[in-house]
Amino acid sequence: MQVEIITIGNEVLSGRTLDTNFAFLARALEEVSVPVVWHTTVGDVGERIGEALRRALTRADGVVMTGGLGPTPDDITRKAVAAALGRRLQLDDDVLARIRDRAKRSGRKLPASVESQALLPRGATAWPNPLGTAPGLLITQDEKPVILLPGVPQEMEALAVEFVIPYFRERSGLAVESFTLRTAGAFESQLHERIGKLPQRWPGAALAYLPSYFGVDLRVTVAGADPAPVHEVAMRAHEQLEARVRPVIYAEGARTMEEVVGDLLVARGWRIAVAESCTGGLMARRLTDIDGSSRYFERGYVTYSNASKVALLGVRPVDLDGHGAVSAPVAEQMARGAREQAGVEVGAGITGVAGPTGGSDEKPVGTVFIAVAAPDGAAVRTYRFMGTRRAIRERAAQTALDLVRRTLQGLPLDPALDG
Amino acid sequence: MQVEIITIGNEVLSGRTLDTNFAFLARALEEVSVPVVWHTTVGDVGERIGEALRRALTRADGVVMTGGLGPTPDDITRKAVAAALGRRLQLDDDVLARIRDRAKRSGRKLPASVESQALLPRGATAWPNPLGTAPGLLITQDEKPVILLPGVPQEMEALAVEFVIPYFRERSGLAVESFTLRTAGAFESQLHERIGKLPQRWPGAALAYLPSYFGVDLRVTVAGADPAPVHEVAMRAHEQLEARVRPVIYAEGARTMEEVVGDLLVARGWRIAVAESCTGGLMARRLTDIDGSSRYFERGYVTYSNASKVALLGVRPVDLDGHGAVSAPVAEQMARGAREQAGVEVGAGITGVAGPTGGSDEKPVGTVFIAVAAPDGAAVRTYRFMGTRRAIRERAAQTALDLVRRTLQGLPLDPALDG
Repeated sequence: MQVEIITIGNEVLSGRTLDTNFAFLARALEEVSVPVVWHTTVGDVGERIGEALRRALTRADGVVMTGGLGPTPDDITRKAVAAALGRRLQLDDDVLARIRDRAKRSGRKLPASVESQALLPRGATAWPNPLGTAPGLLITQDEKPVILLPGVPQEMEALAVEFVIPYFRERSGLAVESFTLRTAGAFESQLHERIGKLPQRWPGAALAYLPSYFGVDLRVTVAGADPAPVHEVAMRAHEQLEARVRPVIYAEGARTMEEVVGDLLVARGWRIAVAESCTGGLMARRLTDIDGSSRYFERGYVTYSNASKVALLGVRPVDLDGHGAVSAPVAEQMARGAREQAGVEVGAGITGVAGPTGGSDEKPVGTVFIAVAAPDGAAVRTYRFMGTRRAIRERAAQTALDLVRRTLQGLPLDPALDG
Repeated sequence: MQVEIITIGNEVLSGRTLDTNFAFLARALEEVSVPVVWHTTVGDVGERIGEALRRALTRADGVVMTGGLGPTPDDITRKAVAAALGRRLQLDDDVLARIRDRAKRSGRKLPASVESQALLPRGATAWPNPLGTAPGLLITQDEKPVILLPGVPQEMEALAVEFVIPYFRERSGLAVESFTLRTAGAFESQLHERIGKLPQRWPGAALAYLPSYFGVDLRVTVAGADPAPVHEVAMRAHEQLEARVRPVIYAEGARTMEEVVGDLLVARGWRIAVAESCTGGLMARRLTDIDGSSRYFERGYVTYSNASKVALLGVRPVDLDGHGAVSAPVAEQMARGAREQAGVEVGAGITGVAGPTGGSDEKPVGTVFIAVAAPDGAAVRTYRFMGTRRAIRERAAQTALDLVRRTLQGLPLDPALDG
């Protein structure tokens, strides 16, 4: 079955709010092999909402609409949908009771208009919203599902995960399995070359290459009529793909590099300190994005000036003069200095030219030196990253985290896809 | 006139790529008072591209399409549009010459398929693409413009700015002016209350409240038939709005807080050092997002552990014990310590509970103490930020930058809207 998604809201149509709801739904539906074939966005205008819905019903097997279910006068989706489908709005006692109960528990006085959210198009099934007062709604029109979800992302996502995706999974009748291998340190073209036509050996499977600042994610989705062969193909695909690209895999699923590094540090009972120049605190920020990172993140130094590199990390002035602040010896001394000054097991050092100015023939924009110091010594590597200042900084921080991971796991520091 | 935007591309329809092109175009068209009333996304499927275009021409006065103009077999927009409009594809010699010239200048060997980009629907005007080989195309169908732009964001944006926006500005016949005042430190509801019905005194003007982690932007757009009254209203609106909310304005237009702070530091010839705990390097990262920030950013400390606060910043252990690491005295000593250790004019200190765990009755999640130290002393403030770990960290960093700005500008540290 094929689905159309309709986003409703002036703030999205004006371009001021990025439509992350649509992206979330499209990805979640892809997970259960229900393709989204059209996406329409309209403002909070009843007649356009109705026209979009009627049009969608002529070309898709199901429609998911988000936005405009709130209690304010702008929120007219329920009314517009009821009109488009020729249904009356009726007060739903269960929904009303849940709204009143929620108001009571919150101890807040909710405006009377909130109760308008209990007015549902006739025949609608209400899915309780765990995070708000507007329920998700399922209406069956000419045997096609029309689903209405609130526009607040957390509420939409909760309802999608609890009701919408299971609904479509069951209705599509397909068994679906999927997995993601996250890689860092190899270009998409290198992965392509290494993987080649391998996916042709997996019936019912699709492989997507998803590049970002953090590397390339390899996502495999397998769909078929029967769960057993789908499971068998997914297992085989996982095994074969992993065997091809093992040296550059850092995580599976949605796990981030900073989560992997954090868990490795916790497992060893080790702590880390980082010294950054061109990344300006980005590596520290990523490590501390994790709640509980104080167990292993001891401190960070953002040593932008030469004076701070000398005073805080013990970088030798003669090396700053002789090799420059952007050099392998300085990166190594930053990593060693961070480790020793903090009295921890692992230190990292990053120095480079993030640009767009400051490059030279010898060290063009994108040149970055990264070092990791551990109990059995330090290592330093040189990189040439491409892109904007932001891209260079993000890639440098990701690569530094990956070097720390490789050190902690006892892996070679240089990814070699053919190894 | 009203416009429909059509996005073409499997990667957008799958939800894996956020449609920033649409957002850019919608905002740019709003600038010239040309409202976008429909937005449709389809995949790289000729028949759906054609249907989307035909439908758009029935309900809008103009259509802008992005994506699918590249040289690969996936890129079928030109062909699909030609078919939908009943036009033949013809080789355009000028476009072909530009493609060959570009290939020659780049010194790269381009695949022959690139020349397919010179095949244009009959009657199309080509707008030269300064950043790539696919030109923008303008086709007039039944007196309505149909505009085709490449999907690569930089190329799309360059063509939009140089050709598309001026085209619609001229065609709409409207004079438009707009400005944005950026505020930090006041809630949207407080701004609403303060501004009230003021915009009703500005004929042809619309005021939008645009909240984010960084505060609330106030955007005013004035449109009308004649440039002179539009300009007069825009000037008056600027003056009156500024007078109402002056104490919380930190910038105009697209300027960021870190740019404002950087320029103030450069103007004084001062330098800054920051000491962060709960923000984990985010304030340092923002200050160093700016190319050239080494002129004023001396160093940053990410003092996550108590030991690092004592060793690097001279925070007194007795205060860590007595008041806790999240406290006003520790924030102040962090700011003073950063300033003194770095030997610079300005220091900042941030300590708080970013959550989601680690809160207490006395100091719930979101409690953040921020201090600024300058040559004439230090000040510290307490905040209670709401939201996720990410929101709390972003708001804390923005507020810390704002306190530095206020210190540098000699303004009161506490925004008072009624002042």
